[in-house]
Amino acid sequence: MKQNIYDHPDFFNGYKELRQSKCNYNNLLEQPALKVLLPELNGKKILDIGCGMGDFASYCIQQGAAHVTGIDISSNMISIARNNNAHNFIQYIQEALEDIDLAPLSFDIVNSSLAFHYMEDFDAITSKIANALHENGFLIFSMEHPIATARREMDKWINDENGNHLHYTIDNYQEEGQRSERWYIDGVIKYHRTLSTIINTLISHQLQIEKIIEPLPTEEAIEQLPSLQKEYRRPSFLIIKAKKVTLK
Amino acid sequence: MKQNIYDHPDFFNGYKELRQSKCNYNNLLEQPALKVLLPELNGKKILDIGCGMGDFASYCIQQGAAHVTGIDISSNMISIARNNNAHNFIQYIQEALEDIDLAPLSFDIVNSSLAFHYMEDFDAITSKIANALHENGFLIFSMEHPIATARREMDKWINDENGNHLHYTIDNYQEEGQRSERWYIDGVIKYHRTLSTIINTLISHQLQIEKIIEPLPTEEAIEQLPSLQKEYRRPSFLIIKAKKVTLK
Repeated sequence: MKQNIYDHPDFFNGYKELRQSKCNYNNLLEQPALKVLLPELNGKKILDIGCGMGDFASYCIQQGAAHVTGIDISSNMISIARNNNAHNFIQYIQEALEDIDLAPLSFDIVNSSLAFHYMEDFDAITSKIANALHENGFLIFSMEHPIATARREMDKWINDENGNHLHYTIDNYQEEGQRSERWYIDGVIKYHRTLSTIINTLISHQLQIEKIIEPLPTEEAIEQLPSLQKEYRRPSFLIIKAKKVTLK
Repeated sequence: MKQNIYDHPDFFNGYKELRQSKCNYNNLLEQPALKVLLPELNGKKILDIGCGMGDFASYCIQQGAAHVTGIDISSNMISIARNNNAHNFIQYIQEALEDIDLAPLSFDIVNSSLAFHYMEDFDAITSKIANALHENGFLIFSMEHPIATARREMDKWINDENGNHLHYTIDNYQEEGQRSERWYIDGVIKYHRTLSTIINTLISHQLQIEKIIEPLPTEEAIEQLPSLQKEYRRPSFLIIKAKKVTLK
C-alpha cells in the first residue's frame, strides 16, 4: 500500500505549519546529522527520494551539484517545490518510489529524508536504489529508529501523575510491519523494521555501511525546542550512509 | 576497570549451575545464532576472547581448526577449560584482553561470546583485534543489545499486578558507560554503548559489517525455556560478523 498522507488537506495544513516554524525535529535534529554524512556534492548527479518542498534539492545546487532529481508522491509537495525551489538543473517528478522506473537513470548520490518508514517493501526499494547508483556512489538516508517504531501503542512514554516522562517503552520489536498512529490525521501508517533487517538488506544489495548516526541535539537546539532533550533518553532517528560496492 | 566476576565464589557457583543445566540463553539462543555466522573453520587459526570453559575451542577443533587460542580473565574458567577441553592444538591463556599483547600473534578468525559488554574501552579492544586479524579475516561476536543495557534501572520489564510483563523500558540510551546490576552477586558491571558507537568503531578499524543478528528462539527452545518467548518483544543480544579489509 502506498500512502499519500501529504495530499490529505488536514494533514497537509498541519504539516506545512510545522515546517514553516523552522523549530522542528527536521531542522534542529535530523537535517544537521544527515548533512554531516553527505559526501562532496560538487558536480554530482543526485536523486532525492521524498523531496518534499525541494529544500534539499536547492541545497545541492548551492553546493555545486550537476543535477538533482526530486521525487515525491504528493502533488501538494511537488507544487510547492516547483514554485519555491525551481532551477534548470532540478527536475521534480510526482511519483512514488515504488512505481518509478529508475532504470534509465543513474546517480552518484541518493538521499532520502524520513521517507523510508512509510514504504512497505524495504528490500524492493533498496534493490532499486542500488541498481541506480554508480559504483562507489552513496546512499544517505534517515528513518524513524526501530526503537521508536517497535511498540504498537502510539504513546510510548510512560508518565507520572504530573505528566513527567518516567521512561520510554519498547515491545513487539521482532514483529515487523505496519504501525498505525495519529499525526494530524488518524491512521498514518508506518512500517517497523528491526535494525538487523535494515542493515542486512542494505548489505545484501552491495550497499556497504560507512557510518550510522543516532542524532543528538545541540544545546542551542534544545533551547529552541526543549522536547529535544528527550533524545538523550531514546533515539528518534536512525541515519545511515552506505557505499555502493561491486562484488569481487 | 577490569572485572573478574567469574572468580568470585558465589558468582562462579551460580554461573556453573546455569551452564550445566544446558537450558539457558547461551545454548538455546545465542550460540546457535553465533554459529550461523561462522565462516569455514577448517585449517584456520582462531582466537576466542572470553573462552570460558573451552567449549567453543573444542568445537573449532572438531571442525578442523588448525589452532585455537582461548583467553579468559578467570582462573576458575581456565582451570575447567584445561581439564575438560584440552587439546594439542588449543592454548588457554589466563589474561584479560586489555592486558594481553596480541602483536606477536595473528588469526584468521576472532570469536567472542558475550564478553565485550564487560570491557570498558571498546575502541581499544576493537583496535587490538583488528591488528591481530589477517586481511579478509573475520571478527564474530555477541554482546548484550544496546536496547537491553540502556536503562540504568536493573529491572526493565514493567509488570501488571499479576506479574505479567506489560512492556519493556528504555531510557538513558545516549548515556554510555557503566551499568551495575545484580547477577548472582551485587555490583556486576556492564558497559552500555549505543548501536552507532558499536558499528562506527568497528568500521573505523577497517572491520566491515557483513551481517547482524538479533536472535530469535526456535519453537523447541521456547518449549524448553518459556521465558525465551520475550525475545519477540525486545532483543537481548546483538551478534555481529565483520570482515577485516585493507584501506584502498
